[in-house]
Amino acid sequence: MAERSTDATLSDPPPTSAAKTPRTERGRKTLRAILDAAAVEFGEKGFHDGSISGITQRAGVALGSFYTYFDSKDEVFRALVRDMSAQVRDHVGPHVLAAADELAAEKAGLKTFLEFVRQHKEIYRIIDESEFVDQESYRQHYETSVQRIDARLKAGAARGEVRADVNEVHAWAIMGMNVFLGLRYGVWDENTPTEDVAAIANDMLRRGLAPD
Amino acid sequence: MAERSTDATLSDPPPTSAAKTPRTERGRKTLRAILDAAAVEFGEKGFHDGSISGITQRAGVALGSFYTYFDSKDEVFRALVRDMSAQVRDHVGPHVLAAADELAAEKAGLKTFLEFVRQHKEIYRIIDESEFVDQESYRQHYETSVQRIDARLKAGAARGEVRADVNEVHAWAIMGMNVFLGLRYGVWDENTPTEDVAAIANDMLRRGLAPD
Repeated sequence: MAERSTDATLSDPPPTSAAKTPRTERGRKTLRAILDAAAVEFGEKGFHDGSISGITQRAGVALGSFYTYFDSKDEVFRALVRDMSAQVRDHVGPHVLAAADELAAEKAGLKTFLEFVRQHKEIYRIIDESEFVDQESYRQHYETSVQRIDARLKAGAARGEVRADVNEVHAWAIMGMNVFLGLRYGVWDENTPTEDVAAIANDMLRRGLAPD
Repeated sequence: MAERSTDATLSDPPPTSAAKTPRTERGRKTLRAILDAAAVEFGEKGFHDGSISGITQRAGVALGSFYTYFDSKDEVFRALVRDMSAQVRDHVGPHVLAAADELAAEKAGLKTFLEFVRQHKEIYRIIDESEFVDQESYRQHYETSVQRIDARLKAGAARGEVRADVNEVHAWAIMGMNVFLGLRYGVWDENTPTEDVAAIANDMLRRGLAPD
């Protein structure tokens, strides 16, 4: 039997190149502060108007600390896209793993994604802008998300929890569903309970993907 | 009983303000040439690097003709987003209308949307860039698309073709599914038959939305 797979089992590349990975706890905190500040800076101003000095001021770190980890505005932006992908995965992953079966896992995944988006609305602007700043990061963000969904679906099929013929089209369909429900009920509207949105979408998915 | 509703029954605003609607056939052709050229210009260069002179050169029209219809680069871009929404609706609408029932209509809608995207790949870049150039156009594009799907679902429910409890969450889920299947199987990949993608997605939807 296939094991339950989770987001957390798939490793993303680290936010910066190996040479620049911080080796101390203090370094890790500085890098974290820079990435969090970059999310606010690019989320508010966009890539073109955002600046390295805006990031270091928000982070409360010296310019030299920035250049310890990143060579350019492009580089911190690319790292930020990978970091946001990883944050979603780390936030959603444990809830997906704790679910009783694959269909419950997809519901938990959507619900916790909506919650994450409400707390990090800038994620949409940043991921969407990556299409124009760095097409490769944009594509990798979505392809990585789809690979995780696809792996979960296939493991669920092996356990008899979803139909046996699940494939990549289902995974892209589910991701698209989640992205636009996140835009509508995460970024644009905070009032509809996330549980309600996840329950409605999941009921459709549950019937749509039930084993024959 | 509710009538079958179609995309074509919902009217979008005209591409330019009423004062600038062409009154002659020649005027209509000029406006069409400008919008088609704008799609190529902004699709290739993006909004910031795209220019009015680039548009008029591609369209083979004088600069004065451009200013007969538009006051600025922003204005032609906003008109282009509305025009692309309308082109999708006009391309997809007749196939949706010709379908035997609501679930067949959603399948025809997705299949013809994928075909449209393969012929007009620039649509993704333009709609996505509108998020940064003119948030209102971006939002209106998606909200209008969702309204059409929602209206179709509710009419289908009234005819007993889909479950009675269909609502806006289903409509956003379907739109998100279509947008990302369009990115994956329209823009990034032209080899998978559109019929296959539409059949797989529609089978899931058919079971997920079947009447109780």
